[in-house]
Amino acid sequence: MTTTPRTARTGGEFVSRHLGPDDDGLARILDTIGVSSLDDLAARAFPSVIVDEVGSDGRAAGIDALPEPLSEADTLAALRALADRNTVAVSMIGQGYYDTLTPPVLIRNIIESPAWYTGYTPYQPEISQGRLEALLNFQTMVSDLTGMDMANASMLDEGTAAAEAMTMLRRANRSSKSHRFAVDVDVFAQTAAILATRAEPLGIEIVTANLIDGGLPEGEFFGALVQTPGASGRVADVSKLIEECHERGVMVAAGVDLLSATVLTPAGEKGADACFGTTQRFGVPMGFGGPHAGFLSCRTAHARNLPGRLVGVSTDADGRVAYRLALQTREQHIRRDKATSNICTAQVLLAVLAAMYASYHGAEGLTAIARRVHAHAAVLADGLVMAGVEVVHGDFFDTVLTRVPGRADEVLAAAAERGVNLWKVDDDHVSISCDEATTGDHVSLVLEAFGARVEDVADAAGLEVMVDPTYGDRTSSFLEHEAFVRYRTETAMLRYLRALSDKDMALDRTMIPLGSCTMKLNSTTEMEPITWPEFNRLHPFAPADQNAGIRQLVGDVEQWLVDITGYAAVSLQPNAGSQGEYAGLLAISAYHRSRGDDDRTVCLIPSSAHGTNAASAVMAGMKVVVVKCRENGDVDVDDLKAKVDKHAGELSAIMITYPSTHGVYEHDIEEICAIVHDAGGQVYIDGANLNALVGVARPGRFGGDVSHLNLHKTFCIPHGGGGPGVGPVAVAEHLREFLPGHPHVDGLGSGGVVAAAPFGSASILPITWAYIRMMGADGLRRATLTAIASANYLARRIGEHFPVLYSGEGGWVAHECILDIRPLIDSVGVSIDDVAKRLADYGFHAPTMSFPVPNTLMVEPTESEDLAELDAFCDAMAAIRAEIDRVAAGEWPVEDNPLRGAPHTAESVSADEWGHPYPRSVAGYPLGATWRPKVWPAVRRIDGAYGDRNLVCSCPPLEAFADD
Amino acid sequence: MTTTPRTARTGGEFVSRHLGPDDDGLARILDTIGVSSLDDLAARAFPSVIVDEVGSDGRAAGIDALPEPLSEADTLAALRALADRNTVAVSMIGQGYYDTLTPPVLIRNIIESPAWYTGYTPYQPEISQGRLEALLNFQTMVSDLTGMDMANASMLDEGTAAAEAMTMLRRANRSSKSHRFAVDVDVFAQTAAILATRAEPLGIEIVTANLIDGGLPEGEFFGALVQTPGASGRVADVSKLIEECHERGVMVAAGVDLLSATVLTPAGEKGADACFGTTQRFGVPMGFGGPHAGFLSCRTAHARNLPGRLVGVSTDADGRVAYRLALQTREQHIRRDKATSNICTAQVLLAVLAAMYASYHGAEGLTAIARRVHAHAAVLADGLVMAGVEVVHGDFFDTVLTRVPGRADEVLAAAAERGVNLWKVDDDHVSISCDEATTGDHVSLVLEAFGARVEDVADAAGLEVMVDPTYGDRTSSFLEHEAFVRYRTETAMLRYLRALSDKDMALDRTMIPLGSCTMKLNSTTEMEPITWPEFNRLHPFAPADQNAGIRQLVGDVEQWLVDITGYAAVSLQPNAGSQGEYAGLLAISAYHRSRGDDDRTVCLIPSSAHGTNAASAVMAGMKVVVVKCRENGDVDVDDLKAKVDKHAGELSAIMITYPSTHGVYEHDIEEICAIVHDAGGQVYIDGANLNALVGVARPGRFGGDVSHLNLHKTFCIPHGGGGPGVGPVAVAEHLREFLPGHPHVDGLGSGGVVAAAPFGSASILPITWAYIRMMGADGLRRATLTAIASANYLARRIGEHFPVLYSGEGGWVAHECILDIRPLIDSVGVSIDDVAKRLADYGFHAPTMSFPVPNTLMVEPTESEDLAELDAFCDAMAAIRAEIDRVAAGEWPVEDNPLRGAPHTAESVSADEWGHPYPRSVAGYPLGATWRPKVWPAVRRIDGAYGDRNLVCSCPPLEAFADD
Repeated sequence: MTTTPRTARTGGEFVSRHLGPDDDGLARILDTIGVSSLDDLAARAFPSVIVDEVGSDGRAAGIDALPEPLSEADTLAALRALADRNTVAVSMIGQGYYDTLTPPVLIRNIIESPAWYTGYTPYQPEISQGRLEALLNFQTMVSDLTGMDMANASMLDEGTAAAEAMTMLRRANRSSKSHRFAVDVDVFAQTAAILATRAEPLGIEIVTANLIDGGLPEGEFFGALVQTPGASGRVADVSKLIEECHERGVMVAAGVDLLSATVLTPAGEKGADACFGTTQRFGVPMGFGGPHAGFLSCRTAHARNLPGRLVGVSTDADGRVAYRLALQTREQHIRRDKATSNICTAQVLLAVLAAMYASYHGAEGLTAIARRVHAHAAVLADGLVMAGVEVVHGDFFDTVLTRVPGRADEVLAAAAERGVNLWKVDDDHVSISCDEATTGDHVSLVLEAFGARVEDVADAAGLEVMVDPTYGDRTSSFLEHEAFVRYRTETAMLRYLRALSDKDMALDRTMIPLGSCTMKLNSTTEMEPITWPEFNRLHPFAPADQNAGIRQLVGDVEQWLVDITGYAAVSLQPNAGSQGEYAGLLAISAYHRSRGDDDRTVCLIPSSAHGTNAASAVMAGMKVVVVKCRENGDVDVDDLKAKVDKHAGELSAIMITYPSTHGVYEHDIEEICAIVHDAGGQVYIDGANLNALVGVARPGRFGGDVSHLNLHKTFCIPHGGGGPGVGPVAVAEHLREFLPGHPHVDGLGSGGVVAAAPFGSASILPITWAYIRMMGADGLRRATLTAIASANYLARRIGEHFPVLYSGEGGWVAHECILDIRPLIDSVGVSIDDVAKRLADYGFHAPTMSFPVPNTLMVEPTESEDLAELDAFCDAMAAIRAEIDRVAAGEWPVEDNPLRGAPHTAESVSADEWGHPYPRSVAGYPLGATWRPKVWPAVRRIDGAYGDRNLVCSCPPLEAFADD
Repeated sequence: MTTTPRTARTGGEFVSRHLGPDDDGLARILDTIGVSSLDDLAARAFPSVIVDEVGSDGRAAGIDALPEPLSEADTLAALRALADRNTVAVSMIGQGYYDTLTPPVLIRNIIESPAWYTGYTPYQPEISQGRLEALLNFQTMVSDLTGMDMANASMLDEGTAAAEAMTMLRRANRSSKSHRFAVDVDVFAQTAAILATRAEPLGIEIVTANLIDGGLPEGEFFGALVQTPGASGRVADVSKLIEECHERGVMVAAGVDLLSATVLTPAGEKGADACFGTTQRFGVPMGFGGPHAGFLSCRTAHARNLPGRLVGVSTDADGRVAYRLALQTREQHIRRDKATSNICTAQVLLAVLAAMYASYHGAEGLTAIARRVHAHAAVLADGLVMAGVEVVHGDFFDTVLTRVPGRADEVLAAAAERGVNLWKVDDDHVSISCDEATTGDHVSLVLEAFGARVEDVADAAGLEVMVDPTYGDRTSSFLEHEAFVRYRTETAMLRYLRALSDKDMALDRTMIPLGSCTMKLNSTTEMEPITWPEFNRLHPFAPADQNAGIRQLVGDVEQWLVDITGYAAVSLQPNAGSQGEYAGLLAISAYHRSRGDDDRTVCLIPSSAHGTNAASAVMAGMKVVVVKCRENGDVDVDDLKAKVDKHAGELSAIMITYPSTHGVYEHDIEEICAIVHDAGGQVYIDGANLNALVGVARPGRFGGDVSHLNLHKTFCIPHGGGGPGVGPVAVAEHLREFLPGHPHVDGLGSGGVVAAAPFGSASILPITWAYIRMMGADGLRRATLTAIASANYLARRIGEHFPVLYSGEGGWVAHECILDIRPLIDSVGVSIDDVAKRLADYGFHAPTMSFPVPNTLMVEPTESEDLAELDAFCDAMAAIRAEIDRVAAGEWPVEDNPLRGAPHTAESVSADEWGHPYPRSVAGYPLGATWRPKVWPAVRRIDGAYGDRNLVCSCPPLEAFADD
């Protein structure tokens, strides 16, 4: 033995905390579905050709390289050791990322609150009114501050918001035939890089020029883009440029810094057609690059061209104000290759944080912060000038650009010695950005770094940080709604956050059996480190020697994902699955082009695919060709062959989801891959359903060339109520070099830039790191097989009441199953909504509705739900079926029954008058008192169409809530 | 100017987050009560003689010494710097404090969850079912593990639990006339010290002897106390001793280590009459001494002698199972000097944590941990023996006692060098305690510290930590209730905690206008540091050089409290206000005795006093003499003079609350103090109402010799649902030397030991530190005056509907006011309960009921409630008055109206049948829809008497919940 007595305290204990069914529960599940063990299930449910060999140690090939599992305590200790290898310096780098002081009440009660972070996208608005209200505040905040009519409920970051602005202007400017887009020179480098990446496959020609000083170049343009304050810190008046553009039929998108917009007249008020930017500095830590919520605001005229999620106001069945996602028909899951964008994920959690930061400070508080930031920048500039340093721009908000010929490196080094990071523009220029966290001490340190004797400067100049209460030229008011007035004390904010979250049904209250969305446990140990300053207060462009710990963590996650997927390399840059797809398709295109195969632009997509696939393919410049599915839901191999033959020389790729969006392990997968490969195409395997593969089979080994993964599905990053997401792209060796790059960070790929930050949402990667580290190879495999067992259990039990639409050979489903409601819709007249909304009365979040097949419910239990919860869901579905039967039997009219009336609020079931043919008790407590707590929906059925017809996307006046 | 440009980012900004009313709100409040400013209010409401002078800088005398306020961010940075001065070593000290691995899901969702920590004591059970259920689990856990019939819902710590056990046996053993109590030698030193302190004033003679080996000494005893495992680690069989005791009519209390009780037959099963101990090692961090939950369990026969809070099962008005505090008539606020104890505060938050730890691990999990702990101890003992070190006891659980003649210091130093703390018993003995966090590495380090060459030892012994699955002699089962079976996954535990907290109304949902309880904001910045390991993972007896930071923090808090109160010295040892009182009275007694005034034993207490005062005086060996109050509520000075005259030579002290429990600044306070002082008595000023004085007047300056403070009232430590509390005692210079001492820590006072840990609940002191640091002198004064202004605002507005019983000169109340319901009770027939419970329907926690005057409501708004919430409460009270009027008018019968029916559950108002004369809408939504969220009580009115008659104090079987 070693010199250390071996401890009995071993890792792996977390596995039993993560997995729902205990030994007894699992035994009952296995018994019900008729297998003897999880291994037996693996042997039966999977096509044997794709299953990885399992060694004598019980570990599957590939993932046997993963480290031994650690306990929760040891995992936190290991993460603490990584955190300690990072240095939190004073960041004055700027360039789109600013330090901010997050009010602790918001950290604890949003970012650290399961009620907020375990929620799903608010597609079921009746049980999501809390975060919908918070998002409406976000939209109001953005449109108010940018001076626009409306804003969406967040973009993935500032850079992609700029790119979405570009494509929005292209759609909006119907009178222009031009494909040219003018971009000012003074935008952030990452923004410019993303614009270039996006423009190329779409055939947009970007013309970069000094628009501010030189005006719009000659020729035709459909749009132009500026940013003020610029990357250089310069504050420019864009009125003239916008006027000129409009005269020439060119639409303008403007980058706006929200904090500066409290004091400087925003571009929206100067006529811009769209404004974009980030809300990071509104209380969202820099996080080594992310996640943060970007934004895009526009004129009402462009409402239907606005990409992303949009919260709108409508009314419920009782006529009360109610919120829901508006204009959903624009979205990619409906419009597919005609969608306005491929964006799936927003940054809801961060948008909520930014909105609450604005609520907590209010207009006056934000303005005071802005003026303080400017005051620090101003005194710094004065001091520098006094010390003989040349300051380039006289008009700045927070960023001072200096000219120090040949001395930039020297100044940066001197500042670094003092614990301060500055930004090297080039060998001759250094810029310094002040922010909310800047203090007089920081200003002194910077002056010293420039070689100024602070005493001299200070004494000579009477240097003092004097906040000028009149600074700025903005005259319009903003944030006057009650949401930005009422919650200024910690008590009021705390109660507001609690009250909002009480309206929502997140994972902390119920199973969320959403097919394709994998709503599994987001454990506390995984979540804890993301609010450690050593991870979340790092600037993404800080010197590499300050972030060795998080880079190690990034490297670990990349390597482990390589092990798990069987690919050769992974990029963590994409901020959502859709971005991962996009990056993967760009890599395929680049690969073909690198071989001279410039004509390979056709992307085959099965008809069952997620709409995002098609939208991504279009964004990547591909032509979508749909491949039919057979009646059993599998890809129609004959049609595939025909399409491959037809497009032989143009074939770029096939995008296929495995297991399929029908929740089935298609047994033809190897043949499908071979057909495409033989024709010179690449195989893109959508990793949305990777939760059904981890530890059992590897897409990189059974035919894939590229996959994106969803760390927010399979790898425990919480859905955050609709974001953040992390969508890494994994590629085979021949595609490695085409992975995403970044203008400010070396060592990445040569591919396009898909997100503003080099490593995407790096600060939430500790979640995935911890999950993999605690589960280990064996635990991950058990999780996968448990999820599959539970899905088959649901299929058996609920299948008695609603037919399961698809299953694979042997009758197995994978990790999810599709319940067919269509026969009942046709014969009885209930709607899919009736069933989904009625589940809320039973205390459950509805499954995925009408995807991939209209009028079906796709159910995914994940491995984290225990047998009691699974059984409760089965009981609820059985009871709902019985209710439908009573409607069918004529006991209750089709137009007035518990399903049509669902969901029922406490107010509605306790109303003095009750005119329904079913009793109140059936409405509110359909199963009587059970062990599961009753959670009341906040509103009744919402009239979505009304809201879309009468589009209101900012906070309604208080009178709207008045009691009748 | 200095070399640093002064920053505009100043402290004090927290003040506006802590205070409820904003400028406009305060203006309206001041206008309503008819003063021009807060200073004007101070001048009018206070007796001028006690008010501290305010300097030209706006700061009151005394507190002008407080440091300048810091911002929230800077406060956290300052606390981080203090934390960094502590060293978290591996603790193997034991002696009642053990490292433990708190499951992160419990930290985040209990200790860091406002829903749990901002709750009040569950005196309103209908809106406290969540924590009552958790406490019932706690009681079940303790009684199961100790092998007893019942347990209370926690004691302040193990040492005081032992003392309470002693006095309980004295009450219970009615057949014994003896005052002698035998204590085994092998109990923790702090336990022995507390027993000695408690025994003396009560006339109990403690006989210390080796009971285990020598049996009960000769003579009569009413009781005996043992502890196993003992302080030495020895596990002894106490069966014979208990048998002998019982034969001789002596009752036995046994200290039980709960973790060992999972494997070793507990003393309860061996016949002990009571068991006591701590639940600290069940997931509650050591916290440099506290807080943790102690416990006391007993036979059913002693139920009515059991001190502290006891949760019992009863039924509500609809016949459903419901929980509430049982046998409350034993408590000090009813029984006063006849109470079973003076304990006010329990350790609810920590008891909840310990109970959930047991739920999460279950019987098997706890047993596995116990066996692992023992395995580490066993391999350590083997290794030591192998290395030639003498191990004293062969029979141990977790603690190994070694004999190392003359080498103890050397071994400790060698261990310390390796980062491990051991325990020096004396120069020749060292003990080592293993715990849940012990690893094989730790065992190796200890072996090395003893000079063993681990390689040799290990190789020779085949040393390996082998968990023996048969270790232990316990055969009975435990923790079989569903509460300890159902919540073993993180998802299930998360949902359980959410569901429980959803049943409760804490400060995160509503104002809690409890008079005398000061339910103010517990801000996140204050709360954050208490879960930092550098504060909460320190052993209280660790070497002083490892805890310089927390000692500095303790010193700061002591000094700031000295500044604020005007006394000379403060001890932070008392874990509750009642303990502070007790310590203060002990100091007074010691002072008198030190001057030869042995006869001074009479304590004058006004009839309006809190019952705890009388109970504490009795515990301190004093004789209580009640002083009458005048009709206006003030002390009857004539009666006081008469009583002083009558008891002149015996006068020890007067205990007086200021402002009075009637919520009034008595103008005779100086005269009262003078009368007592002139007669040679000491003045004890109860600091319960210090929130009405801070920054305006100092009890140490206007007549007090001693006060206790309540950091959990005035200084922002949250109430935790009924604890922890911190009750420092502050004394004038002549009493300084009589402050509490401690057997293991030097430099404290020479007085008795009142709590097990030297600095009490040290790990929550950062809360108070942060509060004072962020508010600064000016902020604290503003808080006090804002609280008074808001109380007078309520008195004016609600006074229109319910008469305000007492007010001082000029008609002012202090920080609270008493609403008189008696006339309506008499004339209309509604009860005080009707009003209190009806408030829950309106979404409010009830005010303090029937204290200090029966059938009144005492309302305290604190400074943290904003005008909107104050107005909403006024509106609710006005509406309730209108409801009473309708009953009076005969519109609704006295026996069936919204008040008598209150509180109404969602289930009751949505029942299919509704037989009440008032409509459902009035029951559930009496004010219609308002901006305040509707929170449904979990149960209807609870039948307390039924529960007391049918006492059930552990988890009921599941069938009890079955739907009818």
